[in-house]
Amino acid sequence: MKQFEKAVSAIGKLSARVSSWPDGVTPVVPAARNEEGFWPSGFRLAGINAGIKPVRKDLMLLLCDGRASAASVFTTNLCTAAPVELSKSHLSVSSGRMRAAICNSGNANAATGEEGMLSATRMAADTAAAFGLKPEEVLVASTGVIGQQLPVAKISEAMARLDASLGKDLWLDAAEAIMTTDTFPKFFGVDVSVTGGTVRIAGIAKGSGMICPNMATMLAFLATDATIEPSLLQEILGAANALSFNAITVDGDTSTNDTASILASGRGPEIIRGSDDAVRFEEALKMVMTMLAQMIVVDGEGATKFVEISIQGARNSDEARMAAMTIANSPLVKTAIHGEDANWGRIIAAAGRSGASFVQDELAVSFDTVPILKPGLDARFSEEEAKKIMSREEFTITVTLGNGPGTAVVWTCDLSKRYIEINGSYRS
Amino acid sequence: MKQFEKAVSAIGKLSARVSSWPDGVTPVVPAARNEEGFWPSGFRLAGINAGIKPVRKDLMLLLCDGRASAASVFTTNLCTAAPVELSKSHLSVSSGRMRAAICNSGNANAATGEEGMLSATRMAADTAAAFGLKPEEVLVASTGVIGQQLPVAKISEAMARLDASLGKDLWLDAAEAIMTTDTFPKFFGVDVSVTGGTVRIAGIAKGSGMICPNMATMLAFLATDATIEPSLLQEILGAANALSFNAITVDGDTSTNDTASILASGRGPEIIRGSDDAVRFEEALKMVMTMLAQMIVVDGEGATKFVEISIQGARNSDEARMAAMTIANSPLVKTAIHGEDANWGRIIAAAGRSGASFVQDELAVSFDTVPILKPGLDARFSEEEAKKIMSREEFTITVTLGNGPGTAVVWTCDLSKRYIEINGSYRS
Repeated sequence: MKQFEKAVSAIGKLSARVSSWPDGVTPVVPAARNEEGFWPSGFRLAGINAGIKPVRKDLMLLLCDGRASAASVFTTNLCTAAPVELSKSHLSVSSGRMRAAICNSGNANAATGEEGMLSATRMAADTAAAFGLKPEEVLVASTGVIGQQLPVAKISEAMARLDASLGKDLWLDAAEAIMTTDTFPKFFGVDVSVTGGTVRIAGIAKGSGMICPNMATMLAFLATDATIEPSLLQEILGAANALSFNAITVDGDTSTNDTASILASGRGPEIIRGSDDAVRFEEALKMVMTMLAQMIVVDGEGATKFVEISIQGARNSDEARMAAMTIANSPLVKTAIHGEDANWGRIIAAAGRSGASFVQDELAVSFDTVPILKPGLDARFSEEEAKKIMSREEFTITVTLGNGPGTAVVWTCDLSKRYIEINGSYRS
Repeated sequence: MKQFEKAVSAIGKLSARVSSWPDGVTPVVPAARNEEGFWPSGFRLAGINAGIKPVRKDLMLLLCDGRASAASVFTTNLCTAAPVELSKSHLSVSSGRMRAAICNSGNANAATGEEGMLSATRMAADTAAAFGLKPEEVLVASTGVIGQQLPVAKISEAMARLDASLGKDLWLDAAEAIMTTDTFPKFFGVDVSVTGGTVRIAGIAKGSGMICPNMATMLAFLATDATIEPSLLQEILGAANALSFNAITVDGDTSTNDTASILASGRGPEIIRGSDDAVRFEEALKMVMTMLAQMIVVDGEGATKFVEISIQGARNSDEARMAAMTIANSPLVKTAIHGEDANWGRIIAAAGRSGASFVQDELAVSFDTVPILKPGLDARFSEEEAKKIMSREEFTITVTLGNGPGTAVVWTCDLSKRYIEINGSYRS
C-alpha cells in the first residue's frame, strides 16, 4: 500500500472507534495527496529535500500570511534539544505572535551544545531573511539523529527552493518532510461550528516517541483559521495535549525534541475566552490531536496492534493515569498482546506495581466487552472469546480498580521482534 | 554446558568483576553438585518432583534442626500472592523464630483469592504435621503461573517423599526445585571471620523479576549458622537487599511473589547489634545477595549481556537510583546494548526523563574506562574502542551527572528477540 493510502486506511480504522464526534465537530479527511482546501486558510506550506537525507524530503516550512497566534507544548526531558530551547525563547519574546515554523528531519540537533544552538538560531534567521519576518517570529524544530551537528549550511542554501515550492495546499509535502522512520505521513482535520461560522483545525505529525534508531521525537504542527488570543490558545493546547499526545506510549522513552505547535491565522471566526465556542474549539482540537496521536501509535516501530488501556474506578485521575501508563509500558503486557495471550495476571501485576491504590479482590479486567477477570478474582472466561478479540488489530483493555471515580485512557501498541531489529541496529 | 557448570561459570565471571572482597569475607564456591559442607550447619534440604510439573523438581524444603532466627523481605506489588501474605503473618506471629521454608515452582498461587490462601495455609500445616513443627513456624513461597489454583493435594501427598529425601548437603536439589524458566540454578556462599570464629552464609535464588511466560517471581533462600536476634537479622537483610536484589532489573516488572528469606540456625558465633561483627556480617550477606542477584541478571530471559549502570554525581542517592533504573529499563538503551551500538544519546535522553536533576552540559558517559561523552557535550570518541567494549559479555556504563555526591549502581541485561519469543508465547 502506498503511504498516503496507508494513512487514509489508518484514519478510517481509528475513526470507526469514535462512537460519536463532539457536537458541531465534523472530521475532514482528504481523498487525495495535497487535496485543495484541506489546510486552514491563511497559510502556505512546503516540503522539500535539502540534502540532509540523501533523497527523501527533509525540510518543512509552515508560513502564515500574517501574524498568527501561536502556542506550543514541549518535551519535559532535561536533555532538551537546541531548537526546543530556541522556540521557547521566541514564543516568549514575541508574546505568542508568530509567522512561521521551520522543521528539518534527519538530524535532531540534540545534545549538540553551543554549536547546536548557533545552528538553530541560524535556521530561524535564514528563514526570517528569506521570507521577510523577524527571527523571533519563527518556531524551529528538528528530528533525527541525536548528538551530531546539524549540517545547517544545507538548510540555508535551501531557502530559495523552499520559497519556490510554497503552496497553500502542500500539507502532504510538509507531512512527508518531517517523517523519520514513520511508514506513513500523519494528517487529520476537523471543522467546528462556532457562533461566527465554521473554524477549520488541521494538523500533521510524525514519529512515536523515541522509537527510531537513534532518531528522536514526536512532532506535530497544527493550524487553524480561528481568531484567538495566544494565551487562550496556549491554555487550550495544553489541555488538549494532556489527553492526546500525552496519552500515548510506544516504549516509554520521552524524547529530547517532542514538540506540538499550533498557529492560528485569524482568518476565521473569533474564539472568546469563557465562551461555549472556546469549549467546542478545545473539544475539536483534542479530536485532531487524538487522531494524530493514535496514528503515531498505529505506526509505532514494529507495532502490529493498537490497544486502548482504559482505567476505571481509580482513587483519582492521577492514580488512573499511573496504572494506565504502567500497564501500557509493561514489556510483559506488550509481549502478551503481541502473542495474543489473554494473560490477565500480567495486567493486574503491572497495576499492582504502578503506585495506584486498590484492593486485589475488587479488580476487574475486560477485553472490549468480554469480562476476563471479575471481582473476587473470578477468572472464568472463554479462552476462545478472548483469543478472538486479541487477534484483532485493535481492541480495548479495561481495568476497573474499584477504588473511586478516577479514570484514564492511554493508547499503546504491542512489542514485537521488529522493534528489537529496528532499534538494535547500528546508528550509521 | 550442563546447568551446574553454567552456574559455576557465571560465578567465575561475576567474581572476576569484584575488585576486592570485604575484609574477612571469603567466597565459597562448591566444585561439584551437592558438594558436602557448602550449606551452613544446622539445616537439611530437599528438592523433589511433586507432580506440579511433569518431570522436573518442583518442591523444595529448607528445614532448620532447631528454631532459627528468620527475616524476610517481600514484594511491594499490591497484587500480593497468598504465600507472601501468609509468610508475613507467620513471621509476625512467631516473632521471627521459624523452623522451615517450603516452596513450590510451577504455580505462583497468585491472584487466587480465598482458595489460594487456603492452599498456602494447607502447605504450611502439612509441612508442620510432617516434620513436627507449628504451622506458624513455616515460611511458604510459590512461583510459576499466576491466576490458576495451586494443586495443593499433590504437595500434601509429597510430604513423605520430601522427608525421605532430606539431607544436609542437598542445596543444589533445593536450588533446582525452585527454578521456573531459569537456565541454571543460582547458589553462592561466603565465610566471614567474626570475633567468635567463622560464620558461613549461603543462599540459593531463582528467576529474574517477572520475566517468565506468565511465571512470576524472584525468590531467594539464604541460610547462616550465625547466632543472631531476629530483629537484627531483619535490619541487616533489609539493608543488604536494597543494594543487591533491589538493584537489578530485567524488564522493570515487579512480580507478585518476590521474596528473600534468611534463616539463622544459631550453631555458630553470635552477631551482636552495634558490633564490628554486625557490620561485617552485613557486608558478607550483601556479597552473597549481590552475587545471586547478578546471576539472575546473567540468566535474564533472552539476555546476552550483563551491564552495570553506575551513576555518579547525582544530587543525592535517590536521584542517582532514579537515573540508574530509568537507563537500565529503557527499551532503547537495552536494544542499543544488544546491537552493540555506542548510542550515548539514548543514555542521556533516558537520564533526562528520569526525574534526576542535572545540567546537560555537565554530563559525562563512559563505557568501562573509555570516555564516550565528556562535559560540554564533547562526544569525540573512538567508535572502534567503544565497539570493542560493547562486544564483551559484560561491561559498565558510568554516567556522571555533575550535580552532587549521589551515587547508585544497578545491574541489567540487554533486550533481545528471544525475550519477545519467550514472553509472546501462549501460557498453556
